Amino acid sequence: MSLVVVGTVAFDAIETPFGKTDKIIGGAATYISLAASYFTSDIDLVSVVGSDFPEESLEHLRSRGVKMGGLQIKEGEKSFFWSGRYHNDMNTRDTLVTELNVLEHFDPVLPDSCKDADFVMLGNLTPAVQMRVIEQLTAQPKLIVLDTMNFWMDIALDDLIKVIAKIDLLTINDEEARQLSGEYSLVKAAKKIMKMGPKYLVIKKGEHGALLFYGDKLFYCPALPLEEVFDPTGAGDTFAGGFIGFLASSGDISFENMKRAVIYGSAMASFCVEKFGTEAIIGRDREEINARVHAFADLVQFTPDS
Amino acid sequence: MSLVVVGTVAFDAIETPFGKTDKIIGGAATYISLAASYFTSDIDLVSVVGSDFPEESLEHLRSRGVKMGGLQIKEGEKSFFWSGRYHNDMNTRDTLVTELNVLEHFDPVLPDSCKDADFVMLGNLTPAVQMRVIEQLTAQPKLIVLDTMNFWMDIALDDLIKVIAKIDLLTINDEEARQLSGEYSLVKAAKKIMKMGPKYLVIKKGEHGALLFYGDKLFYCPALPLEEVFDPTGAGDTFAGGFIGFLASSGDISFENMKRAVIYGSAMASFCVEKFGTEAIIGRDREEINARVHAFADLVQFTPDS
Repeated sequence: MSLVVVGTVAFDAIETPFGKTDKIIGGAATYISLAASYFTSDIDLVSVVGSDFPEESLEHLRSRGVKMGGLQIKEGEKSFFWSGRYHNDMNTRDTLVTELNVLEHFDPVLPDSCKDADFVMLGNLTPAVQMRVIEQLTAQPKLIVLDTMNFWMDIALDDLIKVIAKIDLLTINDEEARQLSGEYSLVKAAKKIMKMGPKYLVIKKGEHGALLFYGDKLFYCPALPLEEVFDPTGAGDTFAGGFIGFLASSGDISFENMKRAVIYGSAMASFCVEKFGTEAIIGRDREEINARVHAFADLVQFTPDS
Repeated sequence: MSLVVVGTVAFDAIETPFGKTDKIIGGAATYISLAASYFTSDIDLVSVVGSDFPEESLEHLRSRGVKMGGLQIKEGEKSFFWSGRYHNDMNTRDTLVTELNVLEHFDPVLPDSCKDADFVMLGNLTPAVQMRVIEQLTAQPKLIVLDTMNFWMDIALDDLIKVIAKIDLLTINDEEARQLSGEYSLVKAAKKIMKMGPKYLVIKKGEHGALLFYGDKLFYCPALPLEEVFDPTGAGDTFAGGFIGFLASSGDISFENMKRAVIYGSAMASFCVEKFGTEAIIGRDREEINARVHAFADLVQFTPDS
């Protein structure tokens, strides 16, 4: 089924305790599209770049089945650039540089062909921009997923609450769930957040896994303990891409299939952190992905009674 | 099979964001024995208290099958007292008062009847005191479990390394595993720590669950997301008590049964945090415990393929 991915396509420069990069390809929509492309080839990208963005990176996305009708290329302008340094714990980071560039006046335009998309993935962006996408839809999608972060809770909470009311599934991390709800217990936080609109909530806990909430139902997906954790950049977006790509491939949004999608998303994220940037999610195949999904199943397998 | 539990029996005064207590009954060995008593009734307690310790609390332990031959009662002296205040995140805390009292010169004496115990659980104590217990054993137990903390890594690392070399299973939290090994990746940390002696390692991650390592094998036990998290004091000890009590009840230390024991320990810990001190682990029954174990199984259940 058709999938529209909205978000940044950008340059990143990353420093971790294990090394640093020059400007590399990043952006939420890049990670989301690449991860989703392992499951479905009916993907439309809606984003904006400057004329400094390398054609071969766009060509790579096209070769993975990602359509570019919704990508604006701003002649003579520069692409969004973010630079950050991770602390030794790899969970916290300092932003060193944020150059909005083309993102400052980004007004997303959905091609007519994807205004009735079955699945819509709104990557982390200004809530008002995410809302502009929803306003252009001409039919109710099967599922609208929205990712956001504490930054928007701090400076654009009203807009964020308005857009959250329009979506089906929200993905945020545990601290953001606590901030948004004012509740310490994630169970209570989830109940409050689901009352704001979304029927589903995914709470991402980084190296501790993820929780999927739906009504009174709850699913805990662990993170695969890894020998090498090199760069967490894009792990949340890669998770979201694997998640929605897997759902879009069958169109089945039953809770059982959503649990499976959380595992596929986590499997994709587990590749992502093993190298810098998008490097480790490029060139995978379904066999490797399935092997990792089975590793998740083994990791938590036990029988209550002997 | 027989189980010896060594550790503190003490008074605590606890402050959390949700309330505070006067002096209540605490201590690692108290939590461990109470949790273990749901699975086995062949438990020997080795500890020390002052004459200020209430007889009815000892009587309660006795009524649960805990033998007191190894409990020293120091006439005219005061029991160990700890007081602490948890921060809003419930994961970090400040120690307000530590009065060692009888603990300052604690020299554990194992009754002859338990020098050939099958299972030995060494709760958090000075590493040299833990070693004194091991030295008194006349036969190799099936399993020696040791719990410790960062405090001993800071001030008694040499002694700690010596005692770790003598045990079968170590329980520490994730930050302590990183400190002890100098490795960020928990997979690498576990490999290094298992080279120090223990064949098994349990890394406790609080509200994020626990990891069991054994050679190349790995098991991830989630924590049950709870509506009410009231007081984390004793959760790690309650986990250890449920874990070793469950193992001692059958004597089966296969990896499959250890995974089960981790779940039973986590189930006991999930009760513990719902009220202050030992309150929520008193008066449980096997039916409630089994129901919670099945809740763990449901929480992570998924089928990789539709």
